[in-house]
Amino acid sequence: MLSDIEISRQSPRLPIQVLAEHLCIPAHLLSPHGHHKGKLSLGLLNQPAGKAGKLVLVSAITPTPLGEGKTVTTLGLSMGLNHIGQPSIATIRQPSLGPVFGVKGGAAGGGHAQVVPMEEMNLHLTGDFHALTAAHNLAAAALDARLFHEQKLGDEFTARTGLQRLDIDPANILWPRTLDMNDRALRHLSIGQGGPGDGVERTDRFVITAASELMAILALAGDLKDLRTRIGRIQLALDNRGNPITAEQLEVAGAMTVLLKDALQPTLMQTTEQTPVLVHAGPFANIAHGNSSVIADRMALQLTDYVVTEAGFGSDMGLEKFFNIKSRQSGITPACVVLVATVRGLKANSGLLDIRPGQPLPESLLEEDLPTLEQGCTNLAWHINNARRYGVPVVVAVNRFPTDSQAELALLMREALRAGACGTAISHAFTQGGAGASELAQAVVAACEMPSQIQLLYPDDMSLCAKLTTLVECGYGGRGVLLSDKARRQLAALSRAGWDHLPICMAKTPLSISHDPARKGVPTDFEVPIDEVRLCAGAGFVYALAGPIMTMPGLGSLPAYRHIDIDDDGEIVGLS
Amino acid sequence: MLSDIEISRQSPRLPIQVLAEHLCIPAHLLSPHGHHKGKLSLGLLNQPAGKAGKLVLVSAITPTPLGEGKTVTTLGLSMGLNHIGQPSIATIRQPSLGPVFGVKGGAAGGGHAQVVPMEEMNLHLTGDFHALTAAHNLAAAALDARLFHEQKLGDEFTARTGLQRLDIDPANILWPRTLDMNDRALRHLSIGQGGPGDGVERTDRFVITAASELMAILALAGDLKDLRTRIGRIQLALDNRGNPITAEQLEVAGAMTVLLKDALQPTLMQTTEQTPVLVHAGPFANIAHGNSSVIADRMALQLTDYVVTEAGFGSDMGLEKFFNIKSRQSGITPACVVLVATVRGLKANSGLLDIRPGQPLPESLLEEDLPTLEQGCTNLAWHINNARRYGVPVVVAVNRFPTDSQAELALLMREALRAGACGTAISHAFTQGGAGASELAQAVVAACEMPSQIQLLYPDDMSLCAKLTTLVECGYGGRGVLLSDKARRQLAALSRAGWDHLPICMAKTPLSISHDPARKGVPTDFEVPIDEVRLCAGAGFVYALAGPIMTMPGLGSLPAYRHIDIDDDGEIVGLS
Repeated sequence: MLSDIEISRQSPRLPIQVLAEHLCIPAHLLSPHGHHKGKLSLGLLNQPAGKAGKLVLVSAITPTPLGEGKTVTTLGLSMGLNHIGQPSIATIRQPSLGPVFGVKGGAAGGGHAQVVPMEEMNLHLTGDFHALTAAHNLAAAALDARLFHEQKLGDEFTARTGLQRLDIDPANILWPRTLDMNDRALRHLSIGQGGPGDGVERTDRFVITAASELMAILALAGDLKDLRTRIGRIQLALDNRGNPITAEQLEVAGAMTVLLKDALQPTLMQTTEQTPVLVHAGPFANIAHGNSSVIADRMALQLTDYVVTEAGFGSDMGLEKFFNIKSRQSGITPACVVLVATVRGLKANSGLLDIRPGQPLPESLLEEDLPTLEQGCTNLAWHINNARRYGVPVVVAVNRFPTDSQAELALLMREALRAGACGTAISHAFTQGGAGASELAQAVVAACEMPSQIQLLYPDDMSLCAKLTTLVECGYGGRGVLLSDKARRQLAALSRAGWDHLPICMAKTPLSISHDPARKGVPTDFEVPIDEVRLCAGAGFVYALAGPIMTMPGLGSLPAYRHIDIDDDGEIVGLS
Repeated sequence: MLSDIEISRQSPRLPIQVLAEHLCIPAHLLSPHGHHKGKLSLGLLNQPAGKAGKLVLVSAITPTPLGEGKTVTTLGLSMGLNHIGQPSIATIRQPSLGPVFGVKGGAAGGGHAQVVPMEEMNLHLTGDFHALTAAHNLAAAALDARLFHEQKLGDEFTARTGLQRLDIDPANILWPRTLDMNDRALRHLSIGQGGPGDGVERTDRFVITAASELMAILALAGDLKDLRTRIGRIQLALDNRGNPITAEQLEVAGAMTVLLKDALQPTLMQTTEQTPVLVHAGPFANIAHGNSSVIADRMALQLTDYVVTEAGFGSDMGLEKFFNIKSRQSGITPACVVLVATVRGLKANSGLLDIRPGQPLPESLLEEDLPTLEQGCTNLAWHINNARRYGVPVVVAVNRFPTDSQAELALLMREALRAGACGTAISHAFTQGGAGASELAQAVVAACEMPSQIQLLYPDDMSLCAKLTTLVECGYGGRGVLLSDKARRQLAALSRAGWDHLPICMAKTPLSISHDPARKGVPTDFEVPIDEVRLCAGAGFVYALAGPIMTMPGLGSLPAYRHIDIDDDGEIVGLS
């Protein structure tokens, strides 16, 4: 089989204007970026006579280092729907540059289910991440500059500038700096070390752009005005009396919004089969909600009959957050959930195998092993039940690998139906594109006809504490939360400050349904320790840290960038 | 008169495809970015039957805090040439975001001589600066990651990775990090402070993106292959034995080039009168050469009859570097130089006035004062002679302000002709657009018909030391250089390492012809102290630090970002 980039290069492509015409997008609402990408104006949301598409939410079993192929299945399903005559658009997140140059490679799908041109998708795209980086760092620079000028001018500050003092507490600056890069040396640093004139010395940290609150805001904003309001609400720091200082108070929210004006427009691209894809935003699925944007989903739902979107990690993470954060804020709800499972992923979820990076895979993964698979299927059953709890029908998509035996595939599908899936199908999208996902598409169409009644896990008017407990007990099947003193104090303060109405965004490991990555399958009898909670006033959620969460990845000792180059014809090589 | 952004909004605009058609650019070589910007493929350089345009280089008197309006005159002249039936393209640098949010506002020209849409020009444009930031920081992250892994794995590094050790000396890392932001707190910092796993602790610094060597490389590269070669040559650090470690050795040069592939394409835009402009690169004019790109100039020269380009600061800076660095490396030479002067700028250059930021301007600036102007004209005469030394005819453009008296304008033009200018003209481009610059355009056409014989200041095969001395003595009229011990050692080392063939890039103040900003007019009897010299192996020059040079600006106490916002219609306000 050809490499991803070879398949991408050989795929026939529609000029972006033609692709937009197929979707009946007026020319003036498409802003082309090169020949195969274009930004869609928010004016599209106000067009009359839009369609009322059905949303399909793609989630997965507990992820494993082997990779389940969720993006491949998302794109493949959308291609499969188009293949069987059901017009569909996929809405997915933009990849971060960090992993592209680190280890993972790109995030444009793979094989015959890719977004093309994959190099444009995986590199700068239309510059949204760069715009986020700039807007984020403008706020950071503005904050440090204000701190510096207030200290330098002292009592004269107001007389000299006409501005009220903010009295920023340098020990309580909540807003980090950001880069879209894997750069571990920037996790902890001290800035302002040049002496007088070069800023106030303090400790600081960088997070990767996907971990910026601005990324979550971009993904949750309903329109430009809402974006402006949310940015104004961001709490950048505390003052010396412990009161929050917002971006509005620093007078930087307008300029940040201006930097993000174009980034608020989703980017239209196409798959290897010229079906439309909207690429937009890329929030992490731990400290943020891990879904593409409200605007992209809403736009796609107006443009077509089926919209296939993907939520980050397993159903305990991105799917839970889709409902309890994104649906809650936007009113957008799926008509059906697709859970991606693989035979080898479920075997790995059995807890019976010893899989370690850098070591050969256990034979059981590569040969038929029904008992291990059956044990792993408890994880699948859990995720099916978890998705059904939100009141939607669930289809299980088996992303087929060459090593899967017929008996294993049959067992997996039997177990899925037994656990409550309304349909199952094997996806061959990686090797066959949309045709290989037509069976899955049929199952999804059938599921979308079934009744659904959306039910969130908790109402708005429940305290943050009670929401946390509900999430752990009802969402994960744990015994409750174990709050640190710090978290307890923070929750009380948030409650007093009037933030109890916000939903919870759990920042925990994706590698277990519990907080402990070592606990595979279906963990029970666990309490989730919460070290700390943090308010994202702009994004509109409170995130709870259940263990250490990496917000700035590092480059490994054999990083991917080493193989990325241009060839003699000026073409990019080494991207995957 | 309307504000800049109002004029920009009201200007009629051609769709970018139509503008490109007017220039006979084949559609497949234009990559539109929105409706009014487009990138031009490097394939354009290989098109047969191109024109052989004449290049006009716009420089200026010694700059003052008042602003001489060099970009306005550059754009106005190009519009004026088109106005009198001489097809012309302006090639200018891309503005940095830092000053846009700091104090200066934008750099898209002003009044009726602007690049439109000015907000797209002043904000992200087509993402080139962001791409540079990413490529620069990838190298920085790669360097720190390699340092970390070699330290962590120790003697096992090679066995575990198959890579040779680079033995990076953490005290000799030459490559800073970068952001396109005014952020003084990042001038001096300590990174890697998170303990084991979070990198190696060391001091570091950020420079603004325009000060990255990559910016100079982008502006000087001849094609994609040359870009790749130059990036590979960049010296990122020294090893523990003092040997340079290049981007090629770190295996990161390919990935950096891939990130800059699109950024190597100039961006086509238009003026307020729909005349074409190429916007590309934005190197500083102190530590770099301060000119738009070789590729943009070359492309424009193939597309039209006249190309008007602008060099940073006064003729002692950007113009000197245009010849001795850019012409030397590219073979591109101007047919004529335009020196922009203003009555008030020359008065300020007299050294007789006391002009201080934040204080009212002296009356002499705002009223007729012939003696002060006459004294200031010695500075103009110096710059005319300086430009003529390179063998090209010089036209003086007087950028007219409302406070200028007729007698003052007459004096200025008389002094210009007396000093050797072959022509003079008053430019009204700010208030009248191209029509207001038609007289200037006529003078430039006449000058371009005059004979020229380009002569650089020094040959390649002169030692770096001798080049420095020549630059100060013949270039500035000083008595020579005063090398610090450090500079002397560095020059000797560079000579030994075989870099003597490179040109010198002087990093000095632009506010005086000498190194001392307090010395106005025509300083004589000075020696330029050189603290340090640094090799830019990728850009292909050695820069010499004559005093402190700011490579990371800060935000003032009343920064411009405070007024930038979106209005109720979603339009940007507050940009100027």
